[in-house]
Amino acid sequence: MAEIDDMRLDDRVKGVPGGVRDLRLGDVGRQGWNLLKEDLPLPVAVLKTGALDNNSRWMTQFLRATGAVIAPHGKTTMSPHLFQRQLADGAWAITVATLGQLQIARRFGLKRLVLANQLIGRQAVAYVVGELARDSEFEFYCLADSLEGVAMIAAEAKRAGLARPVNLLLEGGLMGGRTGCRTREAALAVGRAIKAAAPWVALRGIEGFEGLAQGASMEVREKIVRDFMDYLVAIAGDCQREKLFAAGPVILSAGGSAYYDIVAQRLAAAGIADATVVIRSGCYLTQDSVAYRNFFARIRERSPHVAELAGGLMPALEVWAYVQSRPEQGRLIVNLGRRDVSSDLDLPVMLAWFRPGSAGAPQALAPGSHKVVELNDQHGHVVVPEDSPLQVGDMVALGISHPCTTFDKWQIMYLVDEAYRVTGAIRTFF
Amino acid sequence: MAEIDDMRLDDRVKGVPGGVRDLRLGDVGRQGWNLLKEDLPLPVAVLKTGALDNNSRWMTQFLRATGAVIAPHGKTTMSPHLFQRQLADGAWAITVATLGQLQIARRFGLKRLVLANQLIGRQAVAYVVGELARDSEFEFYCLADSLEGVAMIAAEAKRAGLARPVNLLLEGGLMGGRTGCRTREAALAVGRAIKAAAPWVALRGIEGFEGLAQGASMEVREKIVRDFMDYLVAIAGDCQREKLFAAGPVILSAGGSAYYDIVAQRLAAAGIADATVVIRSGCYLTQDSVAYRNFFARIRERSPHVAELAGGLMPALEVWAYVQSRPEQGRLIVNLGRRDVSSDLDLPVMLAWFRPGSAGAPQALAPGSHKVVELNDQHGHVVVPEDSPLQVGDMVALGISHPCTTFDKWQIMYLVDEAYRVTGAIRTFF
Repeated sequence: MAEIDDMRLDDRVKGVPGGVRDLRLGDVGRQGWNLLKEDLPLPVAVLKTGALDNNSRWMTQFLRATGAVIAPHGKTTMSPHLFQRQLADGAWAITVATLGQLQIARRFGLKRLVLANQLIGRQAVAYVVGELARDSEFEFYCLADSLEGVAMIAAEAKRAGLARPVNLLLEGGLMGGRTGCRTREAALAVGRAIKAAAPWVALRGIEGFEGLAQGASMEVREKIVRDFMDYLVAIAGDCQREKLFAAGPVILSAGGSAYYDIVAQRLAAAGIADATVVIRSGCYLTQDSVAYRNFFARIRERSPHVAELAGGLMPALEVWAYVQSRPEQGRLIVNLGRRDVSSDLDLPVMLAWFRPGSAGAPQALAPGSHKVVELNDQHGHVVVPEDSPLQVGDMVALGISHPCTTFDKWQIMYLVDEAYRVTGAIRTFF
Repeated sequence: MAEIDDMRLDDRVKGVPGGVRDLRLGDVGRQGWNLLKEDLPLPVAVLKTGALDNNSRWMTQFLRATGAVIAPHGKTTMSPHLFQRQLADGAWAITVATLGQLQIARRFGLKRLVLANQLIGRQAVAYVVGELARDSEFEFYCLADSLEGVAMIAAEAKRAGLARPVNLLLEGGLMGGRTGCRTREAALAVGRAIKAAAPWVALRGIEGFEGLAQGASMEVREKIVRDFMDYLVAIAGDCQREKLFAAGPVILSAGGSAYYDIVAQRLAAAGIADATVVIRSGCYLTQDSVAYRNFFARIRERSPHVAELAGGLMPALEVWAYVQSRPEQGRLIVNLGRRDVSSDLDLPVMLAWFRPGSAGAPQALAPGSHKVVELNDQHGHVVVPEDSPLQVGDMVALGISHPCTTFDKWQIMYLVDEAYRVTGAIRTFF
């Protein structure tokens, strides 16, 4: 990470104070900045280090209890600093979603990577084959759900005379859902094609993404997820019977950030010999204040063995803004918009406020009392009680829903302690 | 722009081919890259230079015909290259929305800037006052809609002993809308406070943003916009009667990218002496394929003097992706998601497709025949006819709705000619 710490920040980067030039990223924590002292321009995104530490510990417990390993989805944060933290916590690999993310992970020296997607197009296939040829320590996995995809990869590996196969995970998918073979027959056809294209490609396991299960209630969605896990296991069984897997452990992988308890339990119980169960939650590390908070509450509700674990995930990410206008007694405008905070799953929520120059800590706002009702590109509309104490110039803390789509709006996020002193910063790459 | 052209690109930037290191941005056009030859990793965002040229010409005509000047909203593109182009086209100023955007514009040497917002918080006020003190050529305008806001700015200017006033535009707002005084009385109180705080601040004009007018039909919204312009003019009249304006031209400014014809006409006809009408459309330069395309059609319909102008705005921005999977005959997945393209106003639309290795040009898709129905973070779901020719590995061009929220997803966009040869690149700063 020395390369990132040596990067220079200046005031063209959102969140960096005006006038700053040539500040080493690694020196951000030495500036004596404090969010509550208005040392940072708002809006700004912060990560609470206490919550990050807590969430690291919790996931370590979860993995120990379930026997699964984790390849956290790097697309959530795209922060090499956080990847390093996850690897230090024992992560088996880092997952990425796109070629661009793969390029970034490789540039920062990551060795074991799962591309949870098909490898498509001349640039993508050539890049991966080139990296595999160049670096014998690079261990790479990607998905396959079509004969065309397998053929494209095998052809390039052959053309390049690659000395080892490209590792593939056969993807199963939900009908009406995203990628992935919709039937065992379709999956088997792709699995056979992979074996037939040896030694250029190798089938290393089975993969699926359950996170998009649609259904009127949580119970219905959970049943879809359980059935989907059984479907993936059935594909794995088919491949094992036909001896389509290459030698070595069989990877069984699924698990976004909403159902990983079901995934870990169901895949571990599948009875596939020599299996490694790989979950891929990206959101556990920062958690959030709405959607994943609710998912987590539900995980504990339905999985008593998870509820027994000490502690629980806490939201680490906050975005701070100013009250910019109170043009009507019941309405505030804050200087933060859809370019600063997620709005794809839910609008952000008002957590606390602080009057600059005052002593003490931010004061909590009663949940729902101050309600974000609309975001424009650079503004937030907040409906407030007529007697709300907030006035122009006050600072407010917002909690987010869906970490992925807040991370991608910031090139840097500040690390803060419990008193909102800035102890460092992370850089993202989107 | 030499500073930007000298910036170095590498493959950690989305859209840059794997393996690229230390490529001068100004040399991108000399690489011989062609989108259709798969020289770029997808997804990628491109700007068609022919359409940019066309849109520049059209807006020049519009301004000549209406007598308004333009301070294009820089928040749309946040691209100094495009700002420079707009200034070369005769733009009166560049508008920005936030302190961060102001910092960027100043770092790239822009002299006349409108901050179409209140200046809030210690960092923001101190930065602007500092820049005004440091650079006598810096001409700055920002909004005011509250006594607290005026007091904050005046106090810092006084503390710093600033030799000239901070220029303010008094903001009127729509009831239930965003910022801005809701009544003439409230506006007058702020206007008086500005005059009373001389010489630290000066009232230079009136401002409003009509773009959020709510109403069941376009006709209703247009009436709200016309009435709102009359309201702004009434505020200006009040201020003129009370001699609250500082000496010099009175700025009357409004105008997003949907109603600027009404704004230009209504404010020009207001009869305010020595007025300069400033519109601020940010989206005209790239236009789009859905929302602003429809707004533009409506502008020509309701404003015959605009319909008479030669030509019309054309969409310049496309995002290209691969077909990644066709897991069901009627459904494609493309490798582009909400992190790559706007989805706040409308989902993107499928424009054309191209099979790598084939000769000729991309083939148009009949409008609506291939329909994007959902975006995840990194995937797009497309419903297609059973007999669609598209297959895994084909390239597709998507048109966007709302340029602002596509620009902010790319640090670089390629400039392409009519054959999709890459002739250069622009850098954005978000």
